[in-house]
Amino acid sequence: MTIIHAYAAQKAGGVFEPFEFDAGDLGASDVEIAVESCGICHSDLSMLDNEWQMTQYPFVGGHEVVGRVAAVGDQVPNLSEGDLVGLGWTSRSCMHCDQCMAGDHNLCIEAQGTITHQRGGFADKVRCHWGWATKIPEGVQSESAGPLFCGGLTVFNPLIQMNLSPTSRVGVVGIGGLGHMALMFLKAWGCEVTAISRTRSKESEARDLGTHEFVATSESGALQSQAGKFDLVLNTTDANLPWDDYIATLAPRGVLHTVGAAPKIEATVFPMIMGQRSLASSPTGSIATTRQMLDFVARHQIAPMTEVFPMNQINEAMERLRNGSPRYRIVLTR
Amino acid sequence: MTIIHAYAAQKAGGVFEPFEFDAGDLGASDVEIAVESCGICHSDLSMLDNEWQMTQYPFVGGHEVVGRVAAVGDQVPNLSEGDLVGLGWTSRSCMHCDQCMAGDHNLCIEAQGTITHQRGGFADKVRCHWGWATKIPEGVQSESAGPLFCGGLTVFNPLIQMNLSPTSRVGVVGIGGLGHMALMFLKAWGCEVTAISRTRSKESEARDLGTHEFVATSESGALQSQAGKFDLVLNTTDANLPWDDYIATLAPRGVLHTVGAAPKIEATVFPMIMGQRSLASSPTGSIATTRQMLDFVARHQIAPMTEVFPMNQINEAMERLRNGSPRYRIVLTR
Repeated sequence: MTIIHAYAAQKAGGVFEPFEFDAGDLGASDVEIAVESCGICHSDLSMLDNEWQMTQYPFVGGHEVVGRVAAVGDQVPNLSEGDLVGLGWTSRSCMHCDQCMAGDHNLCIEAQGTITHQRGGFADKVRCHWGWATKIPEGVQSESAGPLFCGGLTVFNPLIQMNLSPTSRVGVVGIGGLGHMALMFLKAWGCEVTAISRTRSKESEARDLGTHEFVATSESGALQSQAGKFDLVLNTTDANLPWDDYIATLAPRGVLHTVGAAPKIEATVFPMIMGQRSLASSPTGSIATTRQMLDFVARHQIAPMTEVFPMNQINEAMERLRNGSPRYRIVLTR
Repeated sequence: MTIIHAYAAQKAGGVFEPFEFDAGDLGASDVEIAVESCGICHSDLSMLDNEWQMTQYPFVGGHEVVGRVAAVGDQVPNLSEGDLVGLGWTSRSCMHCDQCMAGDHNLCIEAQGTITHQRGGFADKVRCHWGWATKIPEGVQSESAGPLFCGGLTVFNPLIQMNLSPTSRVGVVGIGGLGHMALMFLKAWGCEVTAISRTRSKESEARDLGTHEFVATSESGALQSQAGKFDLVLNTTDANLPWDDYIATLAPRGVLHTVGAAPKIEATVFPMIMGQRSLASSPTGSIATTRQMLDFVARHQIAPMTEVFPMNQINEAMERLRNGSPRYRIVLTR
């Protein structure tokens, strides 16, 4: 048995309070991670509020974990005590279905989430299957690495999935937790990058992060001025976009790729057909893609911009996420 | 000058009557084709009826042409009098923009249509830029080849664009002019093919054409029984599909590709994201893809199923398309 010291909410929208539980014996294929830091993702807030009707209380959030392996099960082939690892949205997959065998472990029908099927990283320890604890290579800033494992992976994955060419022109919609990492990735990827935000309040930071152009959609005709331009528009928001207006910004063969959980897409078909445009989407990413991302991050010295709170100020941090506008991702440290 | 003897409609929804016009001097990069046969596409009917508010009267339809080169301009590099060629939806493209230079001539912003920017193939002669007159190789049945150049190319193109693997499971929605060619292409491509139609009235023919399975959506639970199955669903209809139900038939990474001009797509985003599913679309195809299609057709002995009318019975043929259910494509012969 292992007693885990966590922060849990007892009800929807509640506050996090110290909470201890016995995690039982460590599974043969599992590892136990001693948490050093944990990012807060917007989905932690959604889960806290039971927005998706699937939250189990007491609820322990946290799925952008960085820590050291503290214990390994008998059947763990590749990790040892002391290894620095990260853990994201997914904590387990079946490892044998067609998706897992094809390297798409994130699309496994039986995949389990770090905060949906077990208790998460707002704790001193968290567990997962060995496959989902990814070693953090030399050269990655570990203090700010947590947000890479969910938000970062979510915007890195589309570049891999579509085999994006560095010759592409890319628009990033929404300059927040996900969007700011997308700008850094795309700059390093070699693309021409355009940040698309409602106002110009984040323009200066977006340019520092690597965007070549900045479009403020609240300005009259701004989106229209981008007509036919982008090979990829990466939508990181969960807003109901004016879909047809964004499709009109796509070049022939262009893709509007949504990672933000907007409720519904409504799109006029004819302009899509004529320009061979498409609407794509994806969740986080696979184990293999996580490793590729970390190598890329190390090589290009990419680090999420974070605001740091000690974990015992978790409620202040959640409040900052709920009502503030953090620049750009919050990380809790132990 | 060349006097062309055509069939033209003088007004929206009108009948086709003999109509002569002077086509003027042949452009240096143009060829003149002596029409042997010409398929009728549903878009000929849409243009006749001015459904898209762009028809010029007198209107001469016809953009699934098979014929012999009768004259070539000074700058035509690759065709000679007597060559057997086909001509489809597009008759010209600028040949120098980014799309043209990338081989995507069909996505050229200045592309001109055979029946939208000039007079079409319901005539003894029709003209086009040399690039869009494609030589028909040995082994292609020329009498039924016309429908390949618009309908056929439209359903062949997605297989090329997505680099479809023969290991894929593919559903074809709508077993008509386009759908019946899609079944033949996909069978020859090596895929597992499922025909999806409203009723079972075309089941026997669809199986003869090569489908492995047949789904009749009017039967209770039919579509639901296909959940999570398809790597590609190719929609050839212009109906407002129950989009979410079709997205649910996609395997992880699956694509719902629409070539039918449905008015609008409405899709719930979350199931798309979780399964990395996407919505794609495309118009006909490029010059290079037309050539690839013809080689494939010759090698696999594919021929559209056609009903043949002499061209002077064009009005009877149009009526058959408008109110009948031709099996599956109508061709006019001279």
